Amino acid sequence: MFSYTLQKTATDCGARAGQIETAHGVIQTPIFMPVGTLGTVKGVHQRELAEDIRAQIILGNTYHLYLRPGLDVLEGAGGLHAFNGWKKPILTDSGGYQVYSLSGQRKITEEGVTFRSHIDGSKHFFSPERAIDIQRSIGADIIMAFDECPPYPCDYRYAKDSMHMTHRWLKRCMAQMGATSGRYGYEQTLFPIVQGSTYPDLRRASAETIAEAGQPGNAIGGLSVGEPAEDMYETTELVCGILPKEKPRYLMGVGTPDNILECIALGVDMFDCVLPTRNARHGMLYTAQGVINIKNAKWKEDFSPIDEHTPCFASQQYSKAYVRHLMHTKELLGPQIASLHNLSFYLWLVGEARKHILEGDFLPWKNQMVKQMQRRL
Amino acid sequence: MFSYTLQKTATDCGARAGQIETAHGVIQTPIFMPVGTLGTVKGVHQRELAEDIRAQIILGNTYHLYLRPGLDVLEGAGGLHAFNGWKKPILTDSGGYQVYSLSGQRKITEEGVTFRSHIDGSKHFFSPERAIDIQRSIGADIIMAFDECPPYPCDYRYAKDSMHMTHRWLKRCMAQMGATSGRYGYEQTLFPIVQGSTYPDLRRASAETIAEAGQPGNAIGGLSVGEPAEDMYETTELVCGILPKEKPRYLMGVGTPDNILECIALGVDMFDCVLPTRNARHGMLYTAQGVINIKNAKWKEDFSPIDEHTPCFASQQYSKAYVRHLMHTKELLGPQIASLHNLSFYLWLVGEARKHILEGDFLPWKNQMVKQMQRRL
Ligand SMILES: [Zn+2]
Ligand SMILES: [Zn+2]
Repeated sequence: MFSYTLQKTATDCGARAGQIETAHGVIQTPIFMPVGTLGTVKGVHQRELAEDIRAQIILGNTYHLYLRPGLDVLEGAGGLHAFNGWKKPILTDSGGYQVYSLSGQRKITEEGVTFRSHIDGSKHFFSPERAIDIQRSIGADIIMAFDECPPYPCDYRYAKDSMHMTHRWLKRCMAQMGATSGRYGYEQTLFPIVQGSTYPDLRRASAETIAEAGQPGNAIGGLSVGEPAEDMYETTELVCGILPKEKPRYLMGVGTPDNILECIALGVDMFDCVLPTRNARHGMLYTAQGVINIKNAKWKEDFSPIDEHTPCFASQQYSKAYVRHLMHTKELLGPQIASLHNLSFYLWLVGEARKHILEGDFLPWKNQMVKQMQRRL
Repeated sequence: MFSYTLQKTATDCGARAGQIETAHGVIQTPIFMPVGTLGTVKGVHQRELAEDIRAQIILGNTYHLYLRPGLDVLEGAGGLHAFNGWKKPILTDSGGYQVYSLSGQRKITEEGVTFRSHIDGSKHFFSPERAIDIQRSIGADIIMAFDECPPYPCDYRYAKDSMHMTHRWLKRCMAQMGATSGRYGYEQTLFPIVQGSTYPDLRRASAETIAEAGQPGNAIGGLSVGEPAEDMYETTELVCGILPKEKPRYLMGVGTPDNILECIALGVDMFDCVLPTRNARHGMLYTAQGVINIKNAKWKEDFSPIDEHTPCFASQQYSKAYVRHLMHTKELLGPQIASLHNLSFYLWLVGEARKHILEGDFLPWKNQMVKQMQRRL
């Protein structure tokens, strides 16, 4: 069922347009995937995600979903799609990333990771096999390999050892995928993850190992963890040069609108990030003309729409002054509108990128947009 | 522009079906009005209010809107309708009720009320004239008279003096209405308010005074402030017996679903209450079969819809287990879904009441519903 069709590659940069098919429908790339940590994209109805934001795939977080609502509930519902009513594709991370950030509450060994819940302190164990089983239970269309994501900065020795362990864990993930099948009758697909911190030789070695694993799609992990943007771009370029062209490439946890356009230019097809929703809740609105801090006094009597260019009712029908008022009074509707707008803008942006790739003028458009979008309005 | 048509009165109780016309459209009564304190019904988009909840009129709170966003912003926008994008009728309270609950921070004299803002402690003054002017600036279709709403219990002397002051203030409100006109080109209509605590002779006197004032609609205030339900019903019945039949009757701040049906049976046409949204945020869901505390463990693996009978996507598409999960994890979407459901249920309920009044079998239907709705599921 899972397939990727490369539709067009730019001649003046690495940008690609493509199409992924999954059991829950088609994804046109490049694509941004809204993050639904606990089975909900914060502040947004599933109906709005599909019809207004026009999301084609969303993320779920294995660590969070495993703790709450728990696998018994998710399995009882028939998987996350049935539980939350989202009918399109879902990708889950492996749970590793969240577990590693539980500093002082987790212990990593070759076998896996022992950790304590951030909610009640209860003790749990994730391994490559367990991470696959859990993602099978969640019912994700795309399952991420269980990796170690080292912090930044990370010394060379640690990065190298960690990378090789991630490679050994990938073999165990693949074996577990082979030994099990989709719990709800549809195919689930494993994406392995390139690691290696910001060391070019490690990234090269890891990308080669991941490419050789021969999975239907590949991911780049361990970036957007605090390194300078230049390092992120250089590493992404290096890795995209090694990962196979005929499979989708997913850059995990990236990023701002200009990060996304730059990495599309380097050959990335899929992105996810909490920024558009997290920043929305703090009043930061992204537009093609620049960034708006809606709490600023300058918007107090600005009755123009948030952003008339973003094709979403929230962007076009609510004024800046109204959203500023809602944010100042801590009304629920403020984060709701801001989240709807930011996600709609992100989806509009990758849709425009795709259009320009197909039309052959992505690079000049990207260069112009990156300049515009970084402005503070 | 403002008009009320009495379409049908029950033969076995006081229930009435009618229709109000305003500059912003028609309201079919009996009706429930969702409360939008600060220009937003908490957790609900204006689009959802109109299309999913099917609200026909919403409330704004003069005290809150006066403080934030303030009259400069509201006037700059062209009134609250333009500011928040709600195109149907709006009713505003007079600001009095909120001011009186600022205990120790307000002083009531014949001239008006001096009070301090609950936000920054700044000093303000509301009078009958000022309350009219502010509601003119907000642009409400229905403006409430500035009254004193005494607490419950209230001694007879205080209740009587307060009632007469409310009557004197009504004259000043009517004079100010006559001396001014709609700020945005459409008609605004004043509703006076019956007071008198739970003393039958005072309520009778007040209802007669209010009836004689000859305004296009009338309200009953000072109830649902802590008195027993029986007192509320008795007072409502007494007052409805005196207020003119050919004008709509608005019972302020009421109530639970069964309160609303009981008071429809007594002749009330309009209701408002924060319960459906406030209780939604705490996980209490109203249905025709009874009340659900969605946080209870019994819903953990109940994958049936919240309430398949309430005609709203949120009620029908999200499961009890999912909403329980959202409430437990304090996700924004939990209160959003619960608010949508409760308001949709309230609007469905008054719509059914209207249907049964028109069909002539309201009373037996009401008696059955009241029994059902009070159950704890
Ligand atoms: Zn290796
Ligand atoms: Zn009097």
